[in-house]
Amino acid sequence: MMQRCLELARRAVGRTSPNPMVGAVIVKDGKIVGEGFHPRAGEPHAEVFALKAAGADARGATIYVSLEPCNHYGRTPPCSEALVAAGVSKVVVGMVDPNPLVAGGGIARLRAAGIEVVVGVEEEACKKLNEGFVHRILYKRPFGILKYAMTLDGKIATSTGHSAWITNEAARHQVHQVRSACDAVIVGGNTVRHDNPHLTSHQEGAHNPLRIVMSRSLELPEKAHLWQTSEAPTLVLTEQGANPGFQELLRKLGVEVVELTPLTPTRAMAYLYERGFCSVLWECGGVLAASAIAQGAVQKVLAFIAPKIIGGDSAPTPVGDLGFNTMTEALSLERVEMRVVGSDCVVEGYLPTRH
Amino acid sequence: MMQRCLELARRAVGRTSPNPMVGAVIVKDGKIVGEGFHPRAGEPHAEVFALKAAGADARGATIYVSLEPCNHYGRTPPCSEALVAAGVSKVVVGMVDPNPLVAGGGIARLRAAGIEVVVGVEEEACKKLNEGFVHRILYKRPFGILKYAMTLDGKIATSTGHSAWITNEAARHQVHQVRSACDAVIVGGNTVRHDNPHLTSHQEGAHNPLRIVMSRSLELPEKAHLWQTSEAPTLVLTEQGANPGFQELLRKLGVEVVELTPLTPTRAMAYLYERGFCSVLWECGGVLAASAIAQGAVQKVLAFIAPKIIGGDSAPTPVGDLGFNTMTEALSLERVEMRVVGSDCVVEGYLPTRH
Repeated sequence: MMQRCLELARRAVGRTSPNPMVGAVIVKDGKIVGEGFHPRAGEPHAEVFALKAAGADARGATIYVSLEPCNHYGRTPPCSEALVAAGVSKVVVGMVDPNPLVAGGGIARLRAAGIEVVVGVEEEACKKLNEGFVHRILYKRPFGILKYAMTLDGKIATSTGHSAWITNEAARHQVHQVRSACDAVIVGGNTVRHDNPHLTSHQEGAHNPLRIVMSRSLELPEKAHLWQTSEAPTLVLTEQGANPGFQELLRKLGVEVVELTPLTPTRAMAYLYERGFCSVLWECGGVLAASAIAQGAVQKVLAFIAPKIIGGDSAPTPVGDLGFNTMTEALSLERVEMRVVGSDCVVEGYLPTRH
Repeated sequence: MMQRCLELARRAVGRTSPNPMVGAVIVKDGKIVGEGFHPRAGEPHAEVFALKAAGADARGATIYVSLEPCNHYGRTPPCSEALVAAGVSKVVVGMVDPNPLVAGGGIARLRAAGIEVVVGVEEEACKKLNEGFVHRILYKRPFGILKYAMTLDGKIATSTGHSAWITNEAARHQVHQVRSACDAVIVGGNTVRHDNPHLTSHQEGAHNPLRIVMSRSLELPEKAHLWQTSEAPTLVLTEQGANPGFQELLRKLGVEVVELTPLTPTRAMAYLYERGFCSVLWECGGVLAASAIAQGAVQKVLAFIAPKIIGGDSAPTPVGDLGFNTMTEALSLERVEMRVVGSDCVVEGYLPTRH
């Protein structure tokens, strides 16, 4: 049932920020009598939809919900009260609220009303689904994912900068899915100049992230796929007073331009937190990637490795200078997973948490 | 039973060149009555050991052998005749002789004698076990394997050249096993200068490959683990007249020095073929690796990838310049296998065959 909650929750993938994705299932006499998920911020929570669907059947029923029901008046009344009022007899919770200040409040309220509460079912899967939201709540920053595709000899492009395509279609499709689950995707000026990417999720009906270009100089091509904002919105981050004429041009094309000075990954992530973002995908080249890692703007690495050899002494690699001199200083990823996608290999892992 | 043959064959791993590894099992009334393997060149073939063990039981028995029995007088009389003489009633063959000029001769001889012959059991495994030998026979060159260890961001060392250790112990143990299965392991001068490697199989009783340093200049350190030849033999390949004083020093330490002019991977492989080698492991840096690939001296790539990020704009990568400008020129590996070894990932694949 909790797996079903997660399935329902995922229907709103990429659309709920700054809220989490949540799914709920109400079961009575072994039968599902109501389901729901949180579709987007400002709309009712998953429990409310499930209760509405269940109607009178909710009385005496068990509700499964992937995240602890809320216990405060926000844009919607607290779900804990709604569950009490509906007369459910048992609540099965995937994970507690990640905010340590409110965690357990909803559960306590339910228990106080005499409702049986079970906590921590499929907890890891629930946490992973909302790792962006959890990070946002705990650290007041969006969760950063660094994604890159490289050859088996460690290059993200040829010496001349050519990179289409490194991975196969199956891997690229997976990248599109990752994008559709993120609130924003960031590249630097070099990527715009060399690759002219679309950075969309390339899927009918799928969420497109906000496409962000970080460029201090704003020396960017006048024509670029990213300036075609009918497909998906684009935000250019630059420094105060940079290339006013080009800023003008971008704004005319419907591109949002924001000046942050100095323009750094830290500053960008602080700004994107203010905008309510949970997860940000770094799809940039090695220089910006190194800077994002060094500044703690990356929590997870998603490396696609194609089994091919391109060679090149000066061919670019995924991560530029981090100032490490010995191999022992390397950042060892944690909770590493390796998967095969088509003919490519994907390695996913988390950077060590800073203290 | 063929799996048992392969197990037996592997007991001589690294020691049979220029001959193949072969195992044989004789079965009568469902019971193994004799086993054997080819221990090294100049000694009897697997079938002979198995027949000796079986004695009179061989009559009417079935023999399984991983490679087609030989049919010519070499250093030993033909096994086909020995099998006929012993009166076996059935021969199960893993793979036919890879030499197209003699392939099938042993099988034909057995069939002519009225013996039932089955061919191609566990054929892929038999071919893989002897891929070095097969390549040697077909192309008159040793089989080249390029092995490297890199970080998840594609570096084989830090910007300052430090590389100990990239992979974990389990992966390094696997490298030692690969070494023990090869006839030689090659590095360039840079690897000696920066890493001072041992290049041994680090296992009691295991075969050590001939350790080879390719250096045109012979500007190498006077002290190096590779000059300690009590552990394993070392061969230095250089060009005519290079640094005679240092050649003298090396020879005094028991290091073999051979001049090949010009010193190229092609030239080195031709020389190692003449020495009877089946498989050569390239454990060199990116420059020599690129040159070995470009010259067709590498057939298989074995990449160990550690899930860690080291960064570095100028940190070395596994393969230097191959002269490719577009990603479409990349050499796509074939028959790719991906495995997890401890916390690391291993990708193995074959370079496209040249025509």
